[in-house]
Amino acid sequence: MSKLRVAVLGAKGRIGSEAVRAVEAADDMELVAALGRGDRLETLADTGAQVVVELTTPASVMDNLDFCVRHGIHAVVGTTGWTDERLARLDTWLSASPGTGVLIAPNFSIGAVLTMAFAQTAARYFESVEVIELHHPNKVDAPSGTAARTAQLIAAARAEAGRAPQPDATTTALDGARGADVDGIPVHSVRLRGLLAHQEVLLGGEGETLTIRHDSLHHSSFMPGILLGTRRVVTTPGLTFGLEHFLDLN
Amino acid sequence: MSKLRVAVLGAKGRIGSEAVRAVEAADDMELVAALGRGDRLETLADTGAQVVVELTTPASVMDNLDFCVRHGIHAVVGTTGWTDERLARLDTWLSASPGTGVLIAPNFSIGAVLTMAFAQTAARYFESVEVIELHHPNKVDAPSGTAARTAQLIAAARAEAGRAPQPDATTTALDGARGADVDGIPVHSVRLRGLLAHQEVLLGGEGETLTIRHDSLHHSSFMPGILLGTRRVVTTPGLTFGLEHFLDLN
Amino acid sequence: MSKLRVAVLGAKGRIGSEAVRAVEAADDMELVAALGRGDRLETLADTGAQVVVELTTPASVMDNLDFCVRHGIHAVVGTTGWTDERLARLDTWLSASPGTGVLIAPNFSIGAVLTMAFAQTAARYFESVEVIELHHPNKVDAPSGTAARTAQLIAAARAEAGRAPQPDATTTALDGARGADVDGIPVHSVRLRGLLAHQEVLLGGEGETLTIRHDSLHHSSFMPGILLGTRRVVTTPGLTFGLEHFLDLN
Amino acid sequence: MSKLRVAVLGAKGRIGSEAVRAVEAADDMELVAALGRGDRLETLADTGAQVVVELTTPASVMDNLDFCVRHGIHAVVGTTGWTDERLARLDTWLSASPGTGVLIAPNFSIGAVLTMAFAQTAARYFESVEVIELHHPNKVDAPSGTAARTAQLIAAARAEAGRAPQPDATTTALDGARGADVDGIPVHSVRLRGLLAHQEVLLGGEGETLTIRHDSLHHSSFMPGILLGTRRVVTTPGLTFGLEHFLDLN
Repeated sequence: MSKLRVAVLGAKGRIGSEAVRAVEAADDMELVAALGRGDRLETLADTGAQVVVELTTPASVMDNLDFCVRHGIHAVVGTTGWTDERLARLDTWLSASPGTGVLIAPNFSIGAVLTMAFAQTAARYFESVEVIELHHPNKVDAPSGTAARTAQLIAAARAEAGRAPQPDATTTALDGARGADVDGIPVHSVRLRGLLAHQEVLLGGEGETLTIRHDSLHHSSFMPGILLGTRRVVTTPGLTFGLEHFLDLN
Repeated sequence: MSKLRVAVLGAKGRIGSEAVRAVEAADDMELVAALGRGDRLETLADTGAQVVVELTTPASVMDNLDFCVRHGIHAVVGTTGWTDERLARLDTWLSASPGTGVLIAPNFSIGAVLTMAFAQTAARYFESVEVIELHHPNKVDAPSGTAARTAQLIAAARAEAGRAPQPDATTTALDGARGADVDGIPVHSVRLRGLLAHQEVLLGGEGETLTIRHDSLHHSSFMPGILLGTRRVVTTPGLTFGLEHFLDLN
Repeated sequence: MSKLRVAVLGAKGRIGSEAVRAVEAADDMELVAALGRGDRLETLADTGAQVVVELTTPASVMDNLDFCVRHGIHAVVGTTGWTDERLARLDTWLSASPGTGVLIAPNFSIGAVLTMAFAQTAARYFESVEVIELHHPNKVDAPSGTAARTAQLIAAARAEAGRAPQPDATTTALDGARGADVDGIPVHSVRLRGLLAHQEVLLGGEGETLTIRHDSLHHSSFMPGILLGTRRVVTTPGLTFGLEHFLDLN
Repeated sequence: MSKLRVAVLGAKGRIGSEAVRAVEAADDMELVAALGRGDRLETLADTGAQVVVELTTPASVMDNLDFCVRHGIHAVVGTTGWTDERLARLDTWLSASPGTGVLIAPNFSIGAVLTMAFAQTAARYFESVEVIELHHPNKVDAPSGTAARTAQLIAAARAEAGRAPQPDATTTALDGARGADVDGIPVHSVRLRGLLAHQEVLLGGEGETLTIRHDSLHHSSFMPGILLGTRRVVTTPGLTFGLEHFLDLN
């Protein structure tokens, strides 16, 4: 079987340089280009890249994707900063290149994506749900974006299932004890030296609890998701937003 | 809306008496009969039961289901001891009563069922998987049936996804340190005073781990699953084996 | 060896009736009386009780202890409502009966007492500490008294060790995300159906974390502490406040 | 206050180079020498080092300590390979230099040392104890040395407290399910991609459990223990074996 020809854009960044190594280590892939700032995009066409892993910045991602789509090169995109306007523009480009696929993923950690998916599924079946996220103490926001997003998805799943509000008899509480309220779901943020990025979804019903916990110990955790996206984007034309659409969830 | 007319068979047993209370407490159900050993099955027809919750013994379950199916009464069955022969016989009965549904569930705990389902899904995406089950010290078998079954489902999911055997560089080990081997998945059994029934599935990949934990604190945890089965069996003709088929898993 | 002669006061209450069973089941004890409301205290002297387990109410505890101390009967007390005035009064009584011992314990769970002791010890050595307590959703206060007390003890231990405030770079946070502040220690309260009473102390330093978790699954967890107190109070004259003083903590 | 003058031996190794940085970053210490293989030991005396952090190899540690003790320089030693004979020799040297202190520590992680200490204390008070250790899959031995040592300490504490063997009704078990038996304590070893080094001690009694968990995420976790040892060794003449003797454990 011939190998998939992959290029990395943003190859000198922290994630990009790991992606270069991951592609090189994958048996079914060949790294054909590793481009940094200032390198010419034409190299992508010249080297016959089939998929581009795009890990640059919001300032350059649109130009990069314009080039890729025009040349029928699929793309797996980790760069952030997506607005409705940008997505619409990308959609228009893709309509004109119907065989080309683009995956944009806010999170390439398969563990994080599965945690969110499982939490949504389970939320339909339990009376109570709370989220605890735990990070290193240098983090500036609380709760984490992932925890807030997880709580929103849980709240939506509960609403769709017609669930009543959570039981909570608290009448006297210290400020903050019951966490932040995200669409009715309590979210608690722990900041502890020694930790990296961790999240727990606790679900409780009559006589039982279910806990889904994700521990992220290194940003190398993005690599399996990037490789999976690279393999599947070549057979998934059009725009896909979110790695969960490339996972078989049941 | 008229209420669902529900009867409980085995109503004096530990689980049965809880089922009686759970049906009585459900807004959308009416308990029309609660029968124990020696009570006449005709009561089920006389009271117009639409669903029977069958929580008796292997010795009486077949006669009970024979009666139910002949009278077009749906059944939700927690009684164990199912063989291929018994299932085939039940199937034949159901063919003759095409609108009737029977749900047989080895486990009515929604948390346990979701744990198995999520473990199977996630197993496709992680290099390593191990199972730890923890129970009270009066348990006579190790590992638990649920843990063994979970490991088998995980192994099958890995095989289907073409996963290589798990990485394990162990060269010197004390006997038993690496757990029991169930289809290539290590399973560890803890027996501790103060515990009831708990199970953890640990999945690990590059830079991240995902843990799914189920804690069962009381046999009342079966009630939400029994009620859910009761509501859905009336619109699901034929034989369904396993509560997971009544859950929306994605 | 002759058995220790033990009486239970408040023998018909939920905890009291378990204490009766626990004393009966202990090889080295003999239950000589089990008194409820309205029973005559003279029975304690008549039956030669050496230790009284006092599990009544704040309204009756002082009269009961007055009787015990005057008769040289040791006491193990779980009844709450202790004020400085009451403790001073009890101290005076004990001065007049120098061989008699009284143990008052706000918490007879050995696990809870050890959790607090270990948290205090470890707090000296870690940069970060947070407390998570998790309870059933019928609980009216947040955080739990035990969690608040644990946080106070941790804060005192940090102050004594000259520890700087905890690192926390949070600049933007949703209200409540970072928990309640108890003397500088964040405390998070989870309320979840299916849980009983659980507490986690998380400590973090450079490259490592230490977690101490206590799960209380049944009020029978008080029995080992009550029996331990009963055995040791007979050789510990005077007033002891807190079961931790009867544990060998290193 | 004048700063403590500290030298590092083995300064180019993985742990040694971290120790150099940790000493430099400590407000109350001054790094006066950082020596690697081939460097002259006389530098230690010339620079007026008060404490040497010894992180070399079993082949050179004895010569290094001989030099230190003869020059009245205290030492904090992480190098392994200690035999009774070597310890006796070191003891003899120290007798001739009565003001000098040497701390040898098999483990400088404060979290690991506290886990062992707490497990020993708690083991006296619970019916059941088991140990689970979890490591990356490249580890060659199972269980880990730390877990085996922890189990031995627990077993000794139980024996001293006169505890009966653990309750365990298991009659049918798959090989290995109940873990390795270390002096009667079950020890379970998990090997999972994404993990580093983790250990859990589970203790259970009537109605409650206590869990002590240590997560080691980076070898920088040794630094606080090395600094603590460095500060205390100067006032602790003679030989100390084990960092636990420098911790205030109650």
